[in-house]
Amino acid sequence: MRVAELSRRSGVSVASIKYYLREGLLPPGERTGPNQARYTEDHIRRLRLVRALLDVGGLSVAGAREILGAVDSDDIPLHEVLGVTQVAVTPVPARTDDAARSRAATTVDDLVTRRGWRVSRGNPGRRAAVEILATWDRLHHGPDPAGLDVQAQAAENVARHEVRSVGGGAPREQTVESSVLGMVLGGSLLTALRAMAQESASAEVLGVPLATASGPAEAADGG
Amino acid sequence: MRVAELSRRSGVSVASIKYYLREGLLPPGERTGPNQARYTEDHIRRLRLVRALLDVGGLSVAGAREILGAVDSDDIPLHEVLGVTQVAVTPVPARTDDAARSRAATTVDDLVTRRGWRVSRGNPGRRAAVEILATWDRLHHGPDPAGLDVQAQAAENVARHEVRSVGGGAPREQTVESSVLGMVLGGSLLTALRAMAQESASAEVLGVPLATASGPAEAADGG
Repeated sequence: MRVAELSRRSGVSVASIKYYLREGLLPPGERTGPNQARYTEDHIRRLRLVRALLDVGGLSVAGAREILGAVDSDDIPLHEVLGVTQVAVTPVPARTDDAARSRAATTVDDLVTRRGWRVSRGNPGRRAAVEILATWDRLHHGPDPAGLDVQAQAAENVARHEVRSVGGGAPREQTVESSVLGMVLGGSLLTALRAMAQESASAEVLGVPLATASGPAEAADGG
Repeated sequence: MRVAELSRRSGVSVASIKYYLREGLLPPGERTGPNQARYTEDHIRRLRLVRALLDVGGLSVAGAREILGAVDSDDIPLHEVLGVTQVAVTPVPARTDDAARSRAATTVDDLVTRRGWRVSRGNPGRRAAVEILATWDRLHHGPDPAGLDVQAQAAENVARHEVRSVGGGAPREQTVESSVLGMVLGGSLLTALRAMAQESASAEVLGVPLATASGPAEAADGG
């Protein structure tokens, strides 16, 4: 199909398609003339994946390109693809060295030891956690120690289920895309579910719902 | 203090300070001349809060302005401040109506019923969850039903602890900033802890760590 049909069928504008081609997120179509190319069903599917990573996963173009490059490669092992994905979905705030950061690093080291987690120092989550706790500390607030463990336990439960779902035995091509999507969309979903649960807990504990009526009205079809 | 000292002591560049003043994230200093103003310790503290929201919480300038406006107001009840914060920290992907979205809306309605959550249809997390699940479905993947419940239980455990920590009885000014920080930085922290737990679970279940050595090397001081 031509780019106009690719746009119509995928719901992605021609301008965006050309941008994704330039940025290397979408492989080029088969050249059929000086200014024409033919696209296939694979391009429609890839466009869906690109939009899922950018619009729903909240990734940068650079992050999406890294992930797609790893997905497309035939010789990068699954766990390395997931490592690349983890780096792309876990922003690490800039490091500032001060007493608050030293305390935060100790808190994170203690947490890792306490939970028996096997996690390298280069893990983007570990590096991010230190900066987040240091920032919180500098504002004279921070999660109570019990809160940190509640969060760590929740993260552990989610991660164990996610990793078990990866299915280490299945052929690479069957698992790599679904594993990457699980890591990207699973993170967005956890954020969404936390917002839902917060409103419910607020209604229950504080006796009032959070004021979320400011969002656009939903149609009656049950959105 | 003058703006140069405010910059030096806060570690925020003069250009950024001027940008935050223009954008209404930082209140103006006391005017002392046609091109001069005096700033106080409150400005240093506010700059820390602004940077925490933008750099560590990942909020947009518009989102941070909404939150700070609610925090500064004396007459917006705490649960409304938290509602505004929730909207700012929970991106809602664009809505596309199709069969996948109908299925996703049913899945979310069923989840809410099954868990007994008191959550309005306008909740940003509820609206986001529908679009995330629909996107996943369109790519012929998606969390297994058990995975959705594992995530929901984790979100519920975290949210209950967070809401209980708000302390409904304390005076507003003591709780509002710490509650907002808990909602913003708590979300970033949960993402970071999930990344740590994923690496640990991968090492345990798949027998290999995720490839996270690609991050910058950490100093030996225990970062």
